[in-house]
Amino acid sequence: MPRVGSCLGYALLDGGDTAFTIDASSVTFGPGALAEVGEHARHLGARRVALFTDRTLAALAPVAEAQRSLRAAGLDVALYDDVRVEPTDASFLAAAAFAAQGHFDAYVSVGGGSVIDTCKAALLHATYPADLLTYVNRPLGEGRPIPGPLPPHIACPTTTGTGSECTGIAIFDLRAQHAKTGIASRRLRPTLALVDPTAAATLPAGVVAASGFDVLSHALESFTARPFSARPRPDTPLARPMSQGQNPWSDLGCREALRLTGRYLTRAVADATDTEARDAMSWAATLAGIAFGNAGVHLPHAMSYAIAGLRHDFHMPGYPAPFVPHGVAVILGAPAAFRALAPQHPERHLEAAALLGADTRGVDPRDGDAIGTLLADHLTHLMRTAGIPRGLTHVGYGEVDLTALTAGTLAQARLVDNAPRPIPPDELQALFRAALTPW
Amino acid sequence: MPRVGSCLGYALLDGGDTAFTIDASSVTFGPGALAEVGEHARHLGARRVALFTDRTLAALAPVAEAQRSLRAAGLDVALYDDVRVEPTDASFLAAAAFAAQGHFDAYVSVGGGSVIDTCKAALLHATYPADLLTYVNRPLGEGRPIPGPLPPHIACPTTTGTGSECTGIAIFDLRAQHAKTGIASRRLRPTLALVDPTAAATLPAGVVAASGFDVLSHALESFTARPFSARPRPDTPLARPMSQGQNPWSDLGCREALRLTGRYLTRAVADATDTEARDAMSWAATLAGIAFGNAGVHLPHAMSYAIAGLRHDFHMPGYPAPFVPHGVAVILGAPAAFRALAPQHPERHLEAAALLGADTRGVDPRDGDAIGTLLADHLTHLMRTAGIPRGLTHVGYGEVDLTALTAGTLAQARLVDNAPRPIPPDELQALFRAALTPW
Ligand SMILES: NC(=O)c1ccc[n+]([C@@H]2O[C@H](COP(=O)([O-])OP(=O)(O)OC[C@H]3O[C@@H](n4cnc5c(N)ncnc54)[C@H](O)[C@@H]3O)[C@@H](O)[C@H]2O)c1
Ligand SMILES: NC(=O)c1ccc[n+]([C@@H]2O[C@H](COP(=O)([O-])OP(=O)(O)OC[C@H]3O[C@@H](n4cnc5c(N)ncnc54)[C@H](O)[C@@H]3O)[C@@H](O)[C@H]2O)c1
Repeated sequence: MPRVGSCLGYALLDGGDTAFTIDASSVTFGPGALAEVGEHARHLGARRVALFTDRTLAALAPVAEAQRSLRAAGLDVALYDDVRVEPTDASFLAAAAFAAQGHFDAYVSVGGGSVIDTCKAALLHATYPADLLTYVNRPLGEGRPIPGPLPPHIACPTTTGTGSECTGIAIFDLRAQHAKTGIASRRLRPTLALVDPTAAATLPAGVVAASGFDVLSHALESFTARPFSARPRPDTPLARPMSQGQNPWSDLGCREALRLTGRYLTRAVADATDTEARDAMSWAATLAGIAFGNAGVHLPHAMSYAIAGLRHDFHMPGYPAPFVPHGVAVILGAPAAFRALAPQHPERHLEAAALLGADTRGVDPRDGDAIGTLLADHLTHLMRTAGIPRGLTHVGYGEVDLTALTAGTLAQARLVDNAPRPIPPDELQALFRAALTPW
Repeated sequence: MPRVGSCLGYALLDGGDTAFTIDASSVTFGPGALAEVGEHARHLGARRVALFTDRTLAALAPVAEAQRSLRAAGLDVALYDDVRVEPTDASFLAAAAFAAQGHFDAYVSVGGGSVIDTCKAALLHATYPADLLTYVNRPLGEGRPIPGPLPPHIACPTTTGTGSECTGIAIFDLRAQHAKTGIASRRLRPTLALVDPTAAATLPAGVVAASGFDVLSHALESFTARPFSARPRPDTPLARPMSQGQNPWSDLGCREALRLTGRYLTRAVADATDTEARDAMSWAATLAGIAFGNAGVHLPHAMSYAIAGLRHDFHMPGYPAPFVPHGVAVILGAPAAFRALAPQHPERHLEAAALLGADTRGVDPRDGDAIGTLLADHLTHLMRTAGIPRGLTHVGYGEVDLTALTAGTLAQARLVDNAPRPIPPDELQALFRAALTPW
């Protein structure tokens, strides 16, 4: 598309979109925010509340605090603690059955992305019953729009990662297809997010590491995604996707999330008592959620869905069962992907590397290859320090899996299209090969 | 209040609030965004739309474009072009009468803060009829809460200033009391903002200057307001005010708005064809609106309401009638106010001065007095360059008015309380004296 002008530093192209959209959530952030859940739920008209969590959290302080607050507000509370960590189609359906039977008028989720996403899927299916695949993204699902408004949902994250409290996305593992996929709709965004950084105090180091790389990936991928103005202009503004590409709004949140992650991720993993670092990662997670909810992620996330969906025999410390945690799956392909993509927008990748704490002195801002290497090396440095497994080989993949991993990634069209440039299948396979043993 | 901890660099105090709230708007920004108003209105369920504007704009492209788009979407449109620039109690009531008679199911405002604020007041009174003062802030009004939800309102700004498209505030001149005041409620926030920077192409230089200083003031005051954590903790989270004080979320938007204003305000005033500068001021206005909607302004805004309310014989070039435009009223007291308040948080005021483009080399970051002087001098430099009148003397005030100006400011308790420290009446009077002839 030929260039026809510019706006806020973005090139405007003939036939390209000229506007970007900010869909922002209501968020309350701060120590003690969880104690406010009861008052907020009552204000949203709740009487009978479904409280979603997982088994581990059911025995911990955040769930006790949420129950206390909801009951103190005079509300009737039913607990669902059967959420599966890394949800599947079956676990989504079980949660939906609970929701459908309970006649709830509001939903509260207290947990990580697994809990918040399960709650989103459950309240959707309780409100507009349908086959599970009805609302799931194409090509694995039918991609049908959600027919109408959903009941209030207050999301209270207890990990410092997904930002799911601010997004309209619910991810699960579609077992029969060996693929992760999800539901994406503005209507799925929680009504309110209560982000209490003290709720993450008990998070095991392995979960801090994995979910911290999820934050890093949200920010880095949104910051480097195809520009909003390089996407074709939609026929109607209502068709403008949530994954609209990098834009001046998401850039703001991405920069701050990258800076905080570069400064605090290593410290937050190393020391559970370093509240300065853990608070900062909690805030970075929310900012990155707001940013990627308005920009979309790209290639490393597309690769992660194949990595996480295909095999389940690796067991990350801190997690209850064997599987490749989302944040690990997301970062394993990132060094190779960014090495390959940096030449597309060298200055932006250089800025990201600097924000993440890399030493960028003396780097030529036009030398995309050098910048790609610098960024990839800095990512592997952060991964090693945080105890991320050493490549796809360490989580159980080998040369024989490269074709399946490549095909699984290409199926994530929404994400692959949001990359700064098209990736031919053989180049993608080479990226997976490089990710087998990145150091 | 003694210090009990910290979060994200903010000191937590015994009895102080520990959480801050993000209430964000839906915004679409970009050239051409105005053409999307019809589709959005239809999606919001509109059939019969009230389109608010003022006489000047009624003859200009943005209103024609909005009408075209609304009609193309099959909607019935009634135009109200009787909005008064710098609205009064009488003009709010006239607009409310139009709204009440029209049986509208949605509202669109195309104009500056005068138009958007009038539309907010009109749709409120058409929906929940009451005396004008019922919902107006105390002490001038009764400060009653808005009883329930309001109909959809799509706000399309045509000035680069107020950010009213993102705030829950409507300001007017209460003529009988010689005071500006307003209505403030989260419910008043427009459903959607369509910010099309090309809509401001015809803005006279005087309006670019005045509304640009409004942007600067929103960002600078929100950035230096009393910290959220220095405000007493509310009894219930629902009582947390919109003017919650500076916080990590508003800081992000403020920093970018200050940087853009420092870089582009002078250029945007000087050259109507400098679209890079005008686009940037348009985006800065929206960011500052999002920020101050979540932090609140303080002393210079409180002073402005007295300045703008008391006398109406100054005529700023570019405006249709004599009065002190809001942006002028807001910046006239700012140099004196920031000189006095900078010692409260020297580093923050130094950072603001640097973002606004002041030369901060060699300044001791702990020397509040030097920083106050630096910031005040830089503000007067920007004001001179943009053609802002030379002090209160030039807009018609003298020594005899100081008592009334001081009393009028102290009546704005909501804003005065949001300043970084209490201001005794005699100090406030001295600030007004210094503002008579600032250079
Ligand atoms: N919806 C979105 O926008 C989005 C974005 C990214 C990822 N995701 C999805 O979110 C899921 C991952 O979520 P996650 O990384 O937050 O982790 P998680 O919810 O899977 O939880 C990981 C583990 O940490 C435990 N845990 C959580 N909070 C704890 C606490 N405070 N103390 C002790 N243990 C705690 C859980 O019990 C679990 O064992 C994946 O399914 C991923 O695909 C969704
Ligand atoms: N609600 C809020 O959050 C908020 C914030 C700040 C200020 N305000 C209020 O907003 C009002 C000021 O609004 P403003 O500064 O946007 O200006 P304005 O709406 O008063 O308009 C100023 C002048 O510019 C003209 N104009 C507007 N757009 C134009 C265009 N594109 N081309 C040519 N002329 C154009 C108008 O006709 C008018 O004559 C004040 O009443 C102020 O108190 C409200």
